[in-house]
Amino acid sequence: MKDIEILDSTLRDGAQGEGISFSVQDKLKVLKSLDELGIDLVEAGNPGSNPKDLEFFRQAKGLKLNHSRLAAFGSTRRRGVKVEDDDNVKNLLTADTPVVVIFGKSWDFHVTDIIKTTKKENLAMIEETVAFFVGKGKEVVFDAEHFYDGYKASPEYALQCVEAGLRGGACSAVLCDTNGGSLPKFIYDATSDVVKKFPDAVIGVHCHNDSGFAEANSVMAIDAGARHLQGTLAGFGERCGNANLSTLIANLQLKNQCRCVPDESLALLTPMVRRVAEIANISISNGMPYVGKSAFAHKGGMHIDGVSKNTSSFEHVDPDLVGNERRFLMSEVAGRSMILKRIQRISPSLDKDSPETKEIMEELKNMEMEGYQFEGAESSFELVIRKHLGKYRPFFELDHFRIIGDQPAEDKNISNSAILKIKVDGTEEITAAQGDGPVNALDKALRKALEVFYPELKKVHLTDYKVRVLDSKQATAARVRVLIESADETDSWTTVGVSTDIIEASWIALRDSIEFKLLKEIERKMSAYF
Amino acid sequence: MKDIEILDSTLRDGAQGEGISFSVQDKLKVLKSLDELGIDLVEAGNPGSNPKDLEFFRQAKGLKLNHSRLAAFGSTRRRGVKVEDDDNVKNLLTADTPVVVIFGKSWDFHVTDIIKTTKKENLAMIEETVAFFVGKGKEVVFDAEHFYDGYKASPEYALQCVEAGLRGGACSAVLCDTNGGSLPKFIYDATSDVVKKFPDAVIGVHCHNDSGFAEANSVMAIDAGARHLQGTLAGFGERCGNANLSTLIANLQLKNQCRCVPDESLALLTPMVRRVAEIANISISNGMPYVGKSAFAHKGGMHIDGVSKNTSSFEHVDPDLVGNERRFLMSEVAGRSMILKRIQRISPSLDKDSPETKEIMEELKNMEMEGYQFEGAESSFELVIRKHLGKYRPFFELDHFRIIGDQPAEDKNISNSAILKIKVDGTEEITAAQGDGPVNALDKALRKALEVFYPELKKVHLTDYKVRVLDSKQATAARVRVLIESADETDSWTTVGVSTDIIEASWIALRDSIEFKLLKEIERKMSAYF
Repeated sequence: MKDIEILDSTLRDGAQGEGISFSVQDKLKVLKSLDELGIDLVEAGNPGSNPKDLEFFRQAKGLKLNHSRLAAFGSTRRRGVKVEDDDNVKNLLTADTPVVVIFGKSWDFHVTDIIKTTKKENLAMIEETVAFFVGKGKEVVFDAEHFYDGYKASPEYALQCVEAGLRGGACSAVLCDTNGGSLPKFIYDATSDVVKKFPDAVIGVHCHNDSGFAEANSVMAIDAGARHLQGTLAGFGERCGNANLSTLIANLQLKNQCRCVPDESLALLTPMVRRVAEIANISISNGMPYVGKSAFAHKGGMHIDGVSKNTSSFEHVDPDLVGNERRFLMSEVAGRSMILKRIQRISPSLDKDSPETKEIMEELKNMEMEGYQFEGAESSFELVIRKHLGKYRPFFELDHFRIIGDQPAEDKNISNSAILKIKVDGTEEITAAQGDGPVNALDKALRKALEVFYPELKKVHLTDYKVRVLDSKQATAARVRVLIESADETDSWTTVGVSTDIIEASWIALRDSIEFKLLKEIERKMSAYF
Repeated sequence: MKDIEILDSTLRDGAQGEGISFSVQDKLKVLKSLDELGIDLVEAGNPGSNPKDLEFFRQAKGLKLNHSRLAAFGSTRRRGVKVEDDDNVKNLLTADTPVVVIFGKSWDFHVTDIIKTTKKENLAMIEETVAFFVGKGKEVVFDAEHFYDGYKASPEYALQCVEAGLRGGACSAVLCDTNGGSLPKFIYDATSDVVKKFPDAVIGVHCHNDSGFAEANSVMAIDAGARHLQGTLAGFGERCGNANLSTLIANLQLKNQCRCVPDESLALLTPMVRRVAEIANISISNGMPYVGKSAFAHKGGMHIDGVSKNTSSFEHVDPDLVGNERRFLMSEVAGRSMILKRIQRISPSLDKDSPETKEIMEELKNMEMEGYQFEGAESSFELVIRKHLGKYRPFFELDHFRIIGDQPAEDKNISNSAILKIKVDGTEEITAAQGDGPVNALDKALRKALEVFYPELKKVHLTDYKVRVLDSKQATAARVRVLIESADETDSWTTVGVSTDIIEASWIALRDSIEFKLLKEIERKMSAYF
């Protein structure tokens, strides 16, 4: 078992990803999550380039961390300036973190053409800056920026830069593939060479995903002897992102005999990645290895059959190990067996050749063509089945509704109200409500009217509301799909509606959500009697 | 230069990705795109498991393809059945494609425990099925399913399966990492062994991304001697997806001395991936290597400075080579220089220390906190600057509007209408319009009223409308961000609005879009005079 020191840079390099902007509060939440997961080092900001980060470091000092050490990130001193007079260096000191990450150039072209100094001065900038922070009692990580491109262009100079950092007293020297352009075999060879040259040093790796190899390159470097690994938990970062630590931790710990986080933390990987993505307000891709929503979702008919017989037939690891879950998706590709199971839950006597089964399959296909999608909205699907089998009776009848959005003047807010009339077993109820936005007004009015007849609806609340524009090229006349997630004290369920009208799509999903709850209620009561 | 035969399975394995459902028309469009890109083989369906695919193959026969050969995919015959009596085999023949891909088991555990037959019978199933199609004049590709897991468990048997396919007459034998669990070094070693054992055969590779290594593993296999590569253009596929062919084609052709598509096709990669994703109605991740929206987007201040000096400082390849483009993002991390450039375009005399610059930075920060995002909505950002600098005069004044959504009865459609009154230089115009949905009605009414004063607006149309729910846990009262893309004959621009009310958010973005167009028009006229 080889120990790997992990440095997460979600709050620094990750914040450079498109669409990401963390508030101080967001940053504190992410830090706490990474600490809970057992990450060794959290690189949380660049106080020199972003003054907001200083406020974060001030507040972070009050936080009790169980596992993580906090790091601030910054550049070497500028050329021709004394270390102690450099503004960036001063800001780094003010951040007052136990760990400091100093980055310096290690590609001769960058030295001469971008920061426009001499190769000798660049080596001095590295060594002196590292030594300065070591002298202040800091643990210093030296990031050799553009190391692999530098090594390709001029291996001796790139190695001299690493040596300068180590001579300054850095605990580890990190080889960066800053532009993300390197290939796995080259990374292996170059890293092996560095490890051989500096056998006593801790060598690290920092990869970007521009060629799609951030994770493979990281594993290659570790195979070649690296012992410190940098990345971001969900792969956030500039351009194509940084090495995805969730993928790497799972691979290294489950398949490569390495320890990155405490063993008991592995099962936290999925929830922590999702929490961090939610704080960043970025949807992670469904297909993200190990932690994505689809990572263990089976759709092909043969795959579903195989996994039902033996999970290892189509799964490389057990989803429980990383806190994820297995799912079976419903669709035409899923084959009939999956859909049949759902139908039989409602009508056990039907089989795959029953005409009802075929009709439901047909209906499913037609609705999918219209833009419906029942993966993840199984409650709406159950209602489709019930309607077809006659095992459905509407709980209420809509007489009419009217929604009014009023913008009385340029500088006033819009006011939204809904008037709605329903009938339940012949008894009418008319009501009205105001809300934030037209859908919210309609939702409130519908509940208000129905609670008169069904008080159990008081316990239901909507927990999520999603809008997807399906054919966005149609602009404001586009078809939209609305997904609504509802919950009561014990359960949560999702329903779906599709229309060119967002109000209508929302209404369909709202109505299904309420009907599903009332059906559940009846089933619960029945099961108490039988 | 090594030639690699590419097989794209977007229409078969890709269709097993969560959320993907292709109609026959969709499939024909994807096929045409892949042909245009110069893909060798297009695996387009599994007629045995999905009868809709037969209709596709019927229609595809009428299509003239310039480059691609069409392939149908199916299993070996079942155990104990004669090849010619097997239903899957019959369906494959009906598809009537020049190429047939036959998959068979090559992991002994699957043979005995999943399809429950003997190892000997499985070898016969492979050889006989391949030979049957070769006898019908087909070009046959043999996919050795689960090859790498099989090779780990029992190398001899896995190799016997490959041999059975080749003995049957397959043009190529493809080693599949069906569960996506293998690591790059193992793939290299196992593939090398196969290439050594069958030196005259074309060996192929088919990887999945469950460990995040689909692309690295594919490149490893090609380094080890494979000459046929399977994947899907945008990486779509079951669970975590298949090997991403756009990443692989770019890497192999630009960095590995391989030819996968004609050289002149490389610049089609980005548009083709986006077209296929649009047909699939899946948003590809911004960070997708080479072709993603952020793949060449620079946000960090130092990166922007570096790339401005020399593009190779922070870019591994030139974005033009793959049909993508370089972008500079605006945000607090971008540093002031980026924002200052925008400000100076409007007021050249301002510098970074001007109080106006500081105020605008502050405003930008506050609006970002509210949920605004100006990356990709530079037009709204320009209006913010102009309003601050007093270089803005509203083109119209809103008096009021009212939107009414009427659902007169349960079985009727909702009708949406908007009444709106505006003033331009003291002249009033009141009008009304109906639309699909409330926003569409409002959009139509606003244009109708404004075209009376500004006929140039007739040339403007909305090309995209996107809704993002920002804090979806607030359900129907959630804050939403609306992005509207507009275009006239020469240009396109994007504006943004944020509110808890989708109507209000849409109104803000609509209004900005129209004002931006009218400003552009004035600038155009002025430049004709000065």
